[in-house]
Amino acid sequence: MRLDESSLPAYARGCAILGAGGGGDTSVGLLTALQAVGDHGPVEVVDLDALPDDGLVMPCGGIGAPTVSIEKIEAGDEVLRLREAVERLWNRPVAALMCGEIGGSNGLTPVAWAARAGLPIVDADGMGRAFPEVFQVAMEVAGVPATPGVMTDERGNVVVVHAVSGTWMERLERVCSVEFGGAASSTEYQMTVEQARTATIRGSVTLAQRIGRAVLEAEGDPLDALAAVVCGHVLIEGKVTDVERRAEGGFVRGSVTIEGLRSDAGRTLRLELQNENLVALEDGDPLAMVPDIITVIDSESAAAISTERIRYGQRVGVVAFPCDPLWRTPQGLELAGPRAFGYGFPYVPVEQIHGAD
Amino acid sequence: MRLDESSLPAYARGCAILGAGGGGDTSVGLLTALQAVGDHGPVEVVDLDALPDDGLVMPCGGIGAPTVSIEKIEAGDEVLRLREAVERLWNRPVAALMCGEIGGSNGLTPVAWAARAGLPIVDADGMGRAFPEVFQVAMEVAGVPATPGVMTDERGNVVVVHAVSGTWMERLERVCSVEFGGAASSTEYQMTVEQARTATIRGSVTLAQRIGRAVLEAEGDPLDALAAVVCGHVLIEGKVTDVERRAEGGFVRGSVTIEGLRSDAGRTLRLELQNENLVALEDGDPLAMVPDIITVIDSESAAAISTERIRYGQRVGVVAFPCDPLWRTPQGLELAGPRAFGYGFPYVPVEQIHGAD
Repeated sequence: MRLDESSLPAYARGCAILGAGGGGDTSVGLLTALQAVGDHGPVEVVDLDALPDDGLVMPCGGIGAPTVSIEKIEAGDEVLRLREAVERLWNRPVAALMCGEIGGSNGLTPVAWAARAGLPIVDADGMGRAFPEVFQVAMEVAGVPATPGVMTDERGNVVVVHAVSGTWMERLERVCSVEFGGAASSTEYQMTVEQARTATIRGSVTLAQRIGRAVLEAEGDPLDALAAVVCGHVLIEGKVTDVERRAEGGFVRGSVTIEGLRSDAGRTLRLELQNENLVALEDGDPLAMVPDIITVIDSESAAAISTERIRYGQRVGVVAFPCDPLWRTPQGLELAGPRAFGYGFPYVPVEQIHGAD
Repeated sequence: MRLDESSLPAYARGCAILGAGGGGDTSVGLLTALQAVGDHGPVEVVDLDALPDDGLVMPCGGIGAPTVSIEKIEAGDEVLRLREAVERLWNRPVAALMCGEIGGSNGLTPVAWAARAGLPIVDADGMGRAFPEVFQVAMEVAGVPATPGVMTDERGNVVVVHAVSGTWMERLERVCSVEFGGAASSTEYQMTVEQARTATIRGSVTLAQRIGRAVLEAEGDPLDALAAVVCGHVLIEGKVTDVERRAEGGFVRGSVTIEGLRSDAGRTLRLELQNENLVALEDGDPLAMVPDIITVIDSESAAAISTERIRYGQRVGVVAFPCDPLWRTPQGLELAGPRAFGYGFPYVPVEQIHGAD
């Protein structure tokens, strides 16, 4: 499989849907990736089984507040600095890049970087979605060290972080990303291909592509087509009536209120955000929650709307669908379940809440 | 010359006086250094002319808010991590440590580290006093790159910063020091002995020792003895009547009001702080200003009082004396003159203001 001018638009749609509102706006990411494959040629997507055991996999992407990364774009050579630092630290060449998270523009930026660096990208990622914090990745669950993290900005600064834990990696990279102006480029959890085979979410790139195609090629209602391909549940169709959003400590936080229209008239859904849509509440009861994926879809274009783009008056459908099974294990929920985000309620899978749908 | 149990107390006195109120409290630094020379033996103080040209000099010390470093002390092995990282980055052994700043506990911590690491310390430093910001060093004036900076904390985290400028080194290390809890250990501006001979303030360690001895061995008023040894001017003798101080963005900021006693009765002096005493004002007119050194001396013990220890009711004398000539050059003033700290007035040397003393 290759990512090129013809396949990237559908792939970008899929990344946006898997992003749960986060991972950065895909319109900038798609333009960046299109430019890069135009300049340097298509990017090969390779299965981890097709790479040598001891090849070095470099997960990478953007870190920061998505609201910032819409307008603070990269210089373009970030990947060269990240790769050089990683190769020096590991004293071996990078065999392939990997999206740290498949969701949002973080599914696209590594494609642009792969084109520029002349490297393939593996058909896997660290999350199977987007999460706000650096350590919320499958590699952390598998015990792969986050260290060394490498960050860079468009000015050419490079910070190498040898952290005692994933949490310290997050803390130190987060404050540096804020100092860089709210967004930066980074890599953490580098590992061998052999490790990556069991320490990542496999097949994410092809999944994003499949989801994007299903929506773009839908003959009927694209929301139904989306729900079908991801085994999703439409939580509400309605209008955005309130958005409260702020950039705080390197994150976007806030909430969105959606009032139902047509068959959902009289209902009100509230989404709570930290870069991503964390929970969907109706009358205080959760209709869906992290780590399951909650995505807001524009009713007209059928495109996913990221948390930094959502605004008053938009007509939307909210779809929730199951996360990768890894996140439903005790270790997965500890890292990225509702309690990890400060909620008092336990995790209930979205298909259990909506068993009668 | 050696620093050991017998010479360290006088040396610590001198460091405190040269610190202009900053560089960290010397009581903790002295205890740390005494323990280290007790455990590992005395530290050799070497002149840069006695070391081989290509030897690697590692400037080092604490970074953060002095109020924090009184109670957040080191684990002890910080220097081992700093040295290991520097030797890996430079691919050569460290020949000697150097105080990044001679002022305050930053004149003492590198002595403790030198004892522990089995290295000599050079008779030089980066400031000839203490300054609040990383790039306010003679090495920056001489064009030595700040990069690579290495920071560590008591937990074992290590951050390596490759910054595009001294200012970016300051910004990135500062936010990391805040995230570490307000204080950390660091090294920047590593250089060869050959570079260090012209890029540092020479003779600072012996100067601190000489100042400390003059005060400790004074037969008459120690304030007069101090003024004599540093060519200083006593700005006021009085009582601290107000202290406004806050830890903010990794610095201690605020002001101190001193009302005159005896022959100074009726006068009021105001000191403004950013880790160090920046300016001394009377009726809005500066009596002394950065980069000259303004130090508050306890009238009873004749010990310098650091900005984080000064408090209501203390009987004090305020002494101002000339900085190293480097700071009076245009490049020096650009980095560390009154305008660099946001003041609107031009630099006037302390001996010019007090020509009639």
